[in-house]
Formats: sequence, structure tokens, C-alpha cells
Amino acid sequence: MITTMHCPFCSPFVHPVTFAESENFRAIYNLAPVLPGHVLIVPKKHINSFLELSEDESIEMVVFSRKIIKTLKHVFKSDSFDWTIQEGKPAGQSIEHMHLHIIPRFEGDMPEPGDWYPALIGKVPELIDSVSRPKLNTEQMKIIVKKLMDYFNEI
Amino acid sequence: MITTMHCPFCSPFVHPVTFAESENFRAIYNLAPVLPGHVLIVPKKHINSFLELSEDESIEMVVFSRKIIKTLKHVFKSDSFDWTIQEGKPAGQSIEHMHLHIIPRFEGDMPEPGDWYPALIGKVPELIDSVSRPKLNTEQMKIIVKKLMDYFNEI
Repeated sequence: MITTMHCPFCSPFVHPVTFAESENFRAIYNLAPVLPGHVLIVPKKHINSFLELSEDESIEMVVFSRKIIKTLKHVFKSDSFDWTIQEGKPAGQSIEHMHLHIIPRFEGDMPEPGDWYPALIGKVPELIDSVSRPKLNTEQMKIIVKKLMDYFNEI
Repeated sequence: MITTMHCPFCSPFVHPVTFAESENFRAIYNLAPVLPGHVLIVPKKHINSFLELSEDESIEMVVFSRKIIKTLKHVFKSDSFDWTIQEGKPAGQSIEHMHLHIIPRFEGDMPEPGDWYPALIGKVPELIDSVSRPKLNTEQMKIIVKKLMDYFNEI
């Protein structure tokens, strides 16, 4: 397994926020969520680009992410979500380890539907993916991760 | 095949802008691109939601979209892209027929990497996905569609 010491998605810090795994991917709860329920699907190996996944791995990712969406819809009682890969710096990728954002959305959760996107951008990347957004504390995080894990393991 | 008369993605207008097809999906060039190379992957049947795709169809979509990304990278000479599904109105979905945006990105193409996203939002949906962004004319469109089609059929 290729990992990189300075990558936040290869760091042991991802373990307590991981609520689901497939063979080659993990689903992690974002320590500094843009909105409640903001999760990231990340490959376990350190790759930068979606096309570095093999075809089989990208199939695994989409099948895994369907189950993650079902989990988020149930736990966060949402019917709406954004699903985004930002590939490369011009697209807004801030951490050089591929990640797929899944963010449940609600009517009126932000002034404009697109406001979550600029909220991701232009921040100093650190633990998970931002230091400038408010962070959840350990207790809040444990509760959310357990709820997600329980439902994911049930379906 | 379920289609809907008033849906722009079910309309015959999509045919001249379709540059690639798989069994259940088509890749269309956006008549009013946010940026050059802005394409949409749409299921041929009229469904609103990603989870209405069967697991097999979502696998077909990801495999097809890999080939579309390779095509865009080659034709638009880009290494970077945004890939987004906006599911539901709160997420910014303006047409009730599921679609995956793929948008090649370049350093400095917009003042901020996230600016393409608000550019999609809050427009009156009509032919393809906006009436308020400048539209390509038929000749420009023909040239682009042919280039994409030729490369897609080569790989």
C-alpha cells in the first residue's frame, strides 16, 4: 500500500473518523464539515487523480458511494446532496490525494445552493481538509461516526 | 424507455450535441458551457435521482465517464476537471433529470476555482441547462462535437 507521511488522508488521524470501508476505500466524516453530514470517500492508497484508479477500483468506488449516500440520507434525513470530485488545483483540489465529497443538502441550509463550494476553497489544508472552518469536538464526532457506522453495517 | 416531453434531456435537441453514447447514457456538450469543454453525462431514461439508477447502470456511468474524461483531457488539453452531481433543488439541481457535470479546468480560467459553481446556479433552465449564459452557434458546436466524437471513437 502506497501512503505518504505528510498526507492527512494517509495519517492515523483518519481512523477515528472512518465510519465505513470497502477493500480499497474508506468513508470519513469531515472534521471541519462545510455542512452537517459532509463526508469524503478516499482511496486507501495515496493517489492524486481519479484516472489513477483502475477501472475496477472506480467501480468499487461508485458501488461503495451508493451505500454511503443511502446511509447519509437515512442518518441526516436528507433527500438532496452534492457529490463532487475536484481534480487538480485549478478545480479547487487542496489535498493531493483524490477524494469524493458527499454533502447532504437542505432547503435554505445556505443562502445560495452553490455557497458550499466556495466554502471549500482557498483554505489552508491541514487535518482532514480545513483549519479555518469550525471543527467538531471528539465527543460530537464519536456520536456521529457511530450512528453512520451502525446504519452502514445494517444495510 | 421512459422520456418526458418537457424535459430538455429527453428532447430531440440533445441529438446534435451528443458526442458519445453507452447503452444507457449519453455524453452531451453543453450548449451554454460554463467553461470550454463543459459536458453532461445523462441517462437516456428520464430519472431524477442518482439512486434511481440500478447498481449496474451506475457502474456503466462511471466506466463511461472515465472514457469521457480521457476524451476531454485530450481534446481540451487539460489536466484538471470538476465532476459534480447536484441532487435535488437544495443542491442546485435545476433540471429534474439526473446529470453529471464534467468541466475541464485551467489555471486562471476563473478568478476563484469555485466560481464555476455559482455560475451554474439560479438560472432559468431551458435548452440544455441555461438561457442566460452565452450560447455556442451551430457551426462552433458542430466542430467541437465532431472533435470529441472522433477522439472518443478512437480510444
